[in-house]
This record gives sequence, structure tokens and C-alpha cells, in this order.
Amino acid sequence: MGRPASHLSIPTMTHPLFTKHEATLDKALTAIETRGYWSPFAEMPSPKVYGETANADGEAAFKSHLNRTFELDQPSTGEWVGSEKSPFGIPLDIRYPKADLDALLAASGAAQKEWRAAGPQAWVGVSLEILSRINRASFEIGYSVMHTTGQAFMMAFQAGGPHAQDRALEAVVYAWDQLRRIPAEAHWEKPQGKNPPLAMQKRFTVVPRGTGLVLGCCTFPTWNGYPGLFADLATGNAVIVKPHPGAILPLAITVRIARDVLREAGFDPNVVTLLATEPNDGPLVQDLALRPEIKLIDFTGSTQNGTWLERNAHQAQVYTEKAGVNQIVIDSVDDLKAAARNIAFSLALYSGQMCTAPQNIYVPRDGIRTSEGQLSFDDVAKTLAGAVEKLVSDPARAVELTGAIQNDGVLQRIDEARKLGEVLADSQTLAHPTFADARVQSPLVLKLDARTDSSKFTKEWFGPISFVIATDSTAQSLELAGSIAAEHGALTLSVYSTDDAVIDAAHEAAIRGGVALSINLTGGVFINQSAAFSDFHGTGANPAANAALADAAFVANRFRVVQSRVHVAPKAVPAEVGQKA
Amino acid sequence: MGRPASHLSIPTMTHPLFTKHEATLDKALTAIETRGYWSPFAEMPSPKVYGETANADGEAAFKSHLNRTFELDQPSTGEWVGSEKSPFGIPLDIRYPKADLDALLAASGAAQKEWRAAGPQAWVGVSLEILSRINRASFEIGYSVMHTTGQAFMMAFQAGGPHAQDRALEAVVYAWDQLRRIPAEAHWEKPQGKNPPLAMQKRFTVVPRGTGLVLGCCTFPTWNGYPGLFADLATGNAVIVKPHPGAILPLAITVRIARDVLREAGFDPNVVTLLATEPNDGPLVQDLALRPEIKLIDFTGSTQNGTWLERNAHQAQVYTEKAGVNQIVIDSVDDLKAAARNIAFSLALYSGQMCTAPQNIYVPRDGIRTSEGQLSFDDVAKTLAGAVEKLVSDPARAVELTGAIQNDGVLQRIDEARKLGEVLADSQTLAHPTFADARVQSPLVLKLDARTDSSKFTKEWFGPISFVIATDSTAQSLELAGSIAAEHGALTLSVYSTDDAVIDAAHEAAIRGGVALSINLTGGVFINQSAAFSDFHGTGANPAANAALADAAFVANRFRVVQSRVHVAPKAVPAEVGQKA
Repeated sequence: MGRPASHLSIPTMTHPLFTKHEATLDKALTAIETRGYWSPFAEMPSPKVYGETANADGEAAFKSHLNRTFELDQPSTGEWVGSEKSPFGIPLDIRYPKADLDALLAASGAAQKEWRAAGPQAWVGVSLEILSRINRASFEIGYSVMHTTGQAFMMAFQAGGPHAQDRALEAVVYAWDQLRRIPAEAHWEKPQGKNPPLAMQKRFTVVPRGTGLVLGCCTFPTWNGYPGLFADLATGNAVIVKPHPGAILPLAITVRIARDVLREAGFDPNVVTLLATEPNDGPLVQDLALRPEIKLIDFTGSTQNGTWLERNAHQAQVYTEKAGVNQIVIDSVDDLKAAARNIAFSLALYSGQMCTAPQNIYVPRDGIRTSEGQLSFDDVAKTLAGAVEKLVSDPARAVELTGAIQNDGVLQRIDEARKLGEVLADSQTLAHPTFADARVQSPLVLKLDARTDSSKFTKEWFGPISFVIATDSTAQSLELAGSIAAEHGALTLSVYSTDDAVIDAAHEAAIRGGVALSINLTGGVFINQSAAFSDFHGTGANPAANAALADAAFVANRFRVVQSRVHVAPKAVPAEVGQKA
Repeated sequence: MGRPASHLSIPTMTHPLFTKHEATLDKALTAIETRGYWSPFAEMPSPKVYGETANADGEAAFKSHLNRTFELDQPSTGEWVGSEKSPFGIPLDIRYPKADLDALLAASGAAQKEWRAAGPQAWVGVSLEILSRINRASFEIGYSVMHTTGQAFMMAFQAGGPHAQDRALEAVVYAWDQLRRIPAEAHWEKPQGKNPPLAMQKRFTVVPRGTGLVLGCCTFPTWNGYPGLFADLATGNAVIVKPHPGAILPLAITVRIARDVLREAGFDPNVVTLLATEPNDGPLVQDLALRPEIKLIDFTGSTQNGTWLERNAHQAQVYTEKAGVNQIVIDSVDDLKAAARNIAFSLALYSGQMCTAPQNIYVPRDGIRTSEGQLSFDDVAKTLAGAVEKLVSDPARAVELTGAIQNDGVLQRIDEARKLGEVLADSQTLAHPTFADARVQSPLVLKLDARTDSSKFTKEWFGPISFVIATDSTAQSLELAGSIAAEHGALTLSVYSTDDAVIDAAHEAAIRGGVALSINLTGGVFINQSAAFSDFHGTGANPAANAALADAAFVANRFRVVQSRVHVAPKAVPAEVGQKA
């Protein structure tokens, strides 16, 4: 119609918080491309980094939450919920506002409309500002993670603080890496030979899905909760954070910080809301997960619940991390003691309550080659069990590694597992020097046989439970490792071998099982560890997870693009008469 | 263990076919970033581009397939299937090898193992070589598309040839854009203060999902089939192509070309296989779609079948394009006749058998403003119907636009629709000057009312069926457009208005409905057209499709990454003693 398309000239929407954090974002972009070591968040709880009084202030902040109500100015029924219990035995008694589901969904939806219109730079800038504030609260969050999950303080600080923040930033930078590829506008001009070209101005609007639901777990509420939360936020969605009823506080603090930042930046704080619940909240979560308003779900937890979500919440994009069977294949080693020390550490760390902790350790029944000659299966099994027992021989030191058992279900599982086979190292109740009522157990190590016990070791025994399993050969060990990962899921696979052909075969097994492989870990890196920006956590290629933290697939479907096009005047002159197109 | 990680030094796997097509790939990368006009495949069937004898050769090649068996050296039962019928009435009688499903899946899986190992550059290079060979067969494929779908030749050539090839290349370049971000290796080195850094060498292996299944449709077998086929191939998957039983030949020719290129490049041709079927193949497809070997499904077809796949094929990533209700909102126009000509063309083009063809045309019952003054609703309706009738008044010219009706179901639907309301332009049977038995119909245009007829116009009436619908206001028109798109799906939305506020409101409706918007189309661009590299086809944001052609989300989950890590010697020197980390 020849009218100027003035309504299509949208300004590039920069945001001061984007500018503030752009240098960090640029470094993060480089990090996910090169996948070397990088982290903007200091992992040591050092006074030099976090401030001389940060630890004391953080502990005081944590304690100030106890025995009272946790105020949040979001839609609520006026009632209060919450029954977290510290695995270290201290009373918590924190009460959270009970949400009115309909009001919460409506408020989330209303907040999202305005949030959507702010555009990618605002979403990313605000997300990064939230993260930077969360980093400053690392001690408060660390103590909160400790006393809800049972992690020892150092781990609670690191995994619950800076490492979780790394994973959050990783989700944000992956989101930005995809968002920045969508041009806001384009001029399209198609030659028409001798006639004037067809010319159109196009506008591309990133349209977030809507409201996301993040379903937290009771062992790593922040580490596993942040990726979905920040992937949603950075792609313009609103988020309802539903913590596990056993570990609400770390995510409640997170939500409060997010709301503060949103409010200060001029947005409706209901872009991020908390849904605190009591135990046995399954029916409530199932109802919520099927609500048409919920367009994204990020879940960490049981295979049963995760699979239910995948198969029923058709209105949503569903990202799950579920159970798995992590495995170690021992073929041959130079120094068995060094390998055993590394493995024992992995078994004891947070009492095996990590999704990455190993469970099945395959050793050929004819023994293995070492630099000190052939060692029998029993020698290897004894060395592994001995390394575990040595590691926990001093309870005062051991508890800083094992932390406490998150819930009674894990204790019951230890009892049940004890009957499965010959005990190589029994699980002992350990006394905690500081917390008299702490629930602390040393790892249980059992001996099994691949010929007869496969029904026992082809499922996850979550907790400090592992099996040294006699196999016919390393070939059988690798066959089991690949097929169990493919069929039952796995987040980690570890191999010890001095033989390049075995390492190559382990790579093949890892590809078959869709599982990350660690090779000959004997030093300061443990199979449980997964470094943001470098290690993909999960692959999405076996039943343990349908997504990886983080990659393009984790973010690219959290938003869509809606375009418009309108005729404009061509920029090019038509081809000369007589000139062929 | 201090052993050199020689097994981690993998060469960068270049491939001669990647090098051959790298310049095209680079241009395509720029195109998807800028989204201006670009195409490497000439859309005009010009002898200058395709060769002086290309048309005659292509027609002869098409005719050589008729009344005989189509040979493919893939696993087969030895029996033959196929009962395609030309909508233009010529006998086809082509018989395809009947596949043994188990043998086909096994062969596909075996071929994929070797294909996987070839790596991203080989996948992309071979995909581009296949495309370049397909381009040379554009006439043969064009005639095949014409005589299976009913498209007139020019459209069959363009949409079935170069435009489909554009969409295929688009899928390949999106795949490459994601694949190239995964480094093959990384050196990870984490400082440890005064101690030597922790250093690891990491390897990242792109692991394709496995075997993909492409389920074609009977109207655009190549245009809708290629994106999934080439997205799968370019990410290292094997593909079983299952054409609609009514339009096998274009995809059979495609599969044969792909197999030739694979074989010549040294790969097992079973990376791409054909599954030809007879009509009523639903149970067979349902069985196949649930097979554990099938990891990816790309479907174009009915909402019922697409939704069934989304809700049942849990073992696969499922990408669907289903039914929708495309809409036009007429608010005000400068030149109603120009608008009506454009709309009439869109209604007549391939007899409305396009997923992008408009169906519901909303006009305020009080009429609209034009540069010639206010026009009543009936004036507008009459002008639209008149433009349609004029467009088809010369059957000999009309058939080059309408083509033929693909199947009797469409004819029956026209009869059924005729009873829905007052007929503004009746559907006439047109005589085709060349093909006496061709099934040709002019478009049916009816008058409906938003107050009383919503049950009639909130579903798709696939074929040359459209409704001019009286609304209370443009506001109601836009409200209907947004909500019908959101609830029932839509691929296109069109608005005519001289009022910027209405255009802004149309943008909002488009966002609410998750549908692409075209504004004031009166010239040489039609709502049905969607240009690769510039227009996203579908959004994945409403029920008409769960994916867009093409974007990162369309490709990023067709492969996963499996990594390994092993200790290596650090490159950095540790911090000096006394120097704080």
C-alpha cells in the first residue's frame, strides 16, 4: 500500500543490567565454545573474596530464618506450610506462605506478559543481576543447603553456592547464545528480473512459552534447580519454583532475591514465585503439572515421577533428571591404592547421595594387572573396601566428607541392601562431633556376581551403597556398563585401564550407553564432579535424563519466534531492460 | 597415571564433500543470521539454468517410472506395493519394493553405526551433495510431484523442487550451526593455588539419536518431507522415509539419489531407506512409530495422527505439522480490489490444499473504510467472491493455478461445506485442457456469522473452502484470530488495515496465537508463501505444529554429546609459593 512501515522500526532494546554484566556474558560465551576451565564465582569460602564477616553474617542470616515465618509478598491463602527437618538434627521450624494455586498461576501469567515485552537483553541482564546477588548470599544459602540436604558445610557452600551459580550462568549464556541469533528485523528483497524487486520488511519477536514450573529435589535444591529456573527466566518466561518439601529454604531465599531484583528493575516480582508444600505433595504437583498455564517443567527426582511428567504433561516442554546406575570398570591399573583412594572418596562423598555417585564396580573374577603384578578379584575388592574404611576411620574428619543422610528412606535402603550379598565394608553409624543428633552413616560396600546378581545391580540404590561385581572379563564389564546405562540410565561411567584398546572399547561403551566417561581418575578429580562450562551434566541419551546441563537443546525450545512481514520500497534498482535475471 | 593420552588425539575429520560445498554452507549461515532473501536453487524452470533439454529429459525420466517397478537395492520381502493415482487422471501404476520391517530396521541400524563414526563434516558434506544431485533432478521430481499431489506443473516444480531444496539446505545449515559449536576436544586446567593445577584432556563426541522416521504427506511430499530427512541426515542419523501412500514417487526418487550419493561416498546406502505402503497403512505406521529403534519422527498430516505420535511415541523425538485454521482480518484498505486479487489468488492456489492457505476471512458487519469511502460487509464479500470467480473464469488459465484435487476426500468436503451457509462463490468443476480426467474444482466461498457459526469455522476445512465471516468489529476479528490460532492452530494470519493501531493489535493477536503475521499483502507476495532462510514456517507455539522450519530447536535434539576426560600434564606453572590464589 506504499505506506511507511513506521510501526516496524523497533529500537534495539538494551537494558542497563545487560550492559553491567555483558563482560561476564562474553567470557561465558567463550567458555562454552572452548569448554576449558572457567568460573566467575569463587568456589572457596574465602574471606578475601566474600568478605571477612561473610561466614558469620551468612550463618546468622541462616539462623534468622529458623523458628519463624518466611515472608514473601506473593499471592497466598494466608495459611502457612513447611516441615523441613535438618539431617544434622537441629530444629528448623520454618513456615512458608501457602499459595493459592489459581491466584499464583494468574499472578505468574500477568507478570509474564510484561516480562515478555521487555525482550532478551532485559531477561538476560536481570537474570545475571539475580545471580550476582545470589553469589553474595552464598554463605546463607550454603548453611541452608547444609541443614536441608545433609551436605557437610564445604560441599553445601560449593555445590549449593558457586557451583550452582555456575550452572545457572551456563543456562543463561546458552539461552543468550540462541536468542542473539534471532534478528529483530530483516529486509527481504527478491529480484524479479526486469521488474522491480519484491521487498518486505520483517520483524521477528521472541515469544517465551509462558510460565515454567521448576520441581526441586531434596539433595541439590539449587544445583539442580537453578538451570531450569534461569533457562526459563533468560528466555522471558515466568517461573513457579516448587522445592522438594524437604529442602525449601535454599530455593525460598533464591526466590526472594530474584523478586527483589525484579522489583528494583521495575518488573512485577511475580515473574518468580515460590510454591512451598508439605510432604506427600504428589497429587498437588500432578494437578499443577497438567494445568494449561504451565508450559515448561524442569524436574529432578525419581524415575517414576519424571516419567509420569514426560508422558502426561503434554502441554509443556518437560526436562527431567531421574535415577540411574553409575558404574566403574576396573581392567588394569598402575597403582591400585591411588585408584582405590579416588573411588572411596567418590563413594563416601555426601554419603553417595549424588546423582553422579558410582554404584556398580566391575572387576574381572580372574583379577587385574597392576604394576606390582596380578591381583586377584578378592585383593581388589579388599583394597577398595579398605580404602573406604580408612577414609571414615576418624568420624570427626569423615563427617566433613559424608555429611548426613538426607532422609530415613536412605537409612532403610542401607538396611535392605545389606542383605543383598557378602558385606565388604559395613555401613557404620558415625557420631558427629558438633551435631549430636546428626544422621551419619559410613558407606556400605557389597560383593556381587554378574552371573547371578544382575537383578540386584541393574537398579539404583540411592545412598552410600555400592557393589564390587565379579565379571567374566573386562569385555563383559564394558558390555554391562554400556547396556545398563542405555536401559536403566547413568550419569557417569569410569574406567581404569593401562590398555589403550580397553580405553577405546570404554569409549564405545560410553557412546552405546550415552554416558560421560572418566578415565583413570586417581588424583584430585572425582567421578562425582561435573564442571560447568566444560562437562555436560547428563547427556539426554539414556533414561537418567532427557536433557543435558546445559546445551542448545536445553534452551532453544523455551521460546518461539513470531514474525511479521509487510511490503516496503525496494532498495535495489531493477535489472536493466534486456539483462537476464 | 601419567600415560600419554594418545588415544585422545583425534584428527579433525574433514570430508571432501564438505569442502566441495563449504562456500554454499557459509552463505547459508549468513542467510539464517540476516534472514534476507537468499536461495542457491533457481526457482524458475529455466533452460539457461537447468539445461536446454532439462524439461524434456525430466518429463521422460518421470514417464520412465510409470507402469513398472521402481527398483531399490534395499531389504525387501520380494513383494511389491503401491497404488498412487494421478489427480490429473493419467495412469501411474508404479510398484515399489515391499519392505520387511524387521530387516529394514536392522539394516538402517547397521548403516547408522558406520555413518555415526564419519562425523559432522561427512554428514553435512554428503547431505549437501545429495541436495545438489536432487536439484539436478528438479524436473523429474517436479513432474512426479505434479502427478501425485495434483499441483500444477509450475508449482510442482518450484515447491517440490528448488523451494523444497531450500528448506532442506536450511535444515542442514541449522544442524551445522549447532554441530560446529561442539569442540572435538578441550584442555581443562583448574588452578590449585600453590599446588600444580588439575589438568584434563576432554573429548566430545557427537552421538546421533539413531534411526529417524519421516512420515510424508500427500500434498507436499518433498517440501514437508525434506526438512526432517535432512535434519536427521546432517546430524548423523539414518532415515527411513515413509511417504504418504498417495505420493510415493517424489520421495522414492529422492531416496534413490541419496542412496547413490552415499554409496559413491563409501557409505552403506541403507543410511536412507524407503518404506512404501498401500493406503490404510495406519496400523503399520503405528507399530513402526513405537519401535525402540525409531528415535526421531518427523510427521506432516492430520491433527489426529500427529497428536497420537506426540502422545505415544515416547522413545522418539517427535516433530509434527498438523491441521490449523488460517485467518485473514480485514479492517480497512486503500484499494479493496488489489487486496481481493491477492486473497483470491491465495484461495485458488493449489485449490487451497496448502497448510498455509487462508480459510476464515473476518470482515466487520458494519463494513470497512477504503480510500473510496465506506464499503458494506456485503460489498466486501461480493468483491472477494467476484475476484475468485474472475480468477477462474478461464478454466485453461485457472487450472495452472488451481491444479487438481488430490483426493476424493477433498471433493466430499466441498460438498459438505456447501451446506454451511450462504454461498458467495460456488465451487465449479473445471475442464482441464490437457488432462481430460483431471479432478479440478474452483474455490467455494461462503458467508458465515461470528455470532452463530463459530462451530463451523473453528476447524480446518482442508481444500478450496473459505468463509467470509461477519464480526462485530475488528477488535472481535483480532480476538477470534488470536484465540482460534492458540486453540486450534494456525500457520498464517493476515491483516489488512490502514490504521497503525490495528496493525499493532494484530501483532499482539499474532503473538497470542503464536502465528506468523502478514500485513497488507496486495502485490506479488501471497500469504501461502513461506521463504526459506527468511520466513519461519510454523512457530511451534500453537497446535498447528510443535516445531518451526527451521530453527535451532528443530535440530539441536537430534544428536547428543558424549564426553570423556582423562588427566594430562598441566600446561601452566603453579602459582609461586606465597602467592595467593
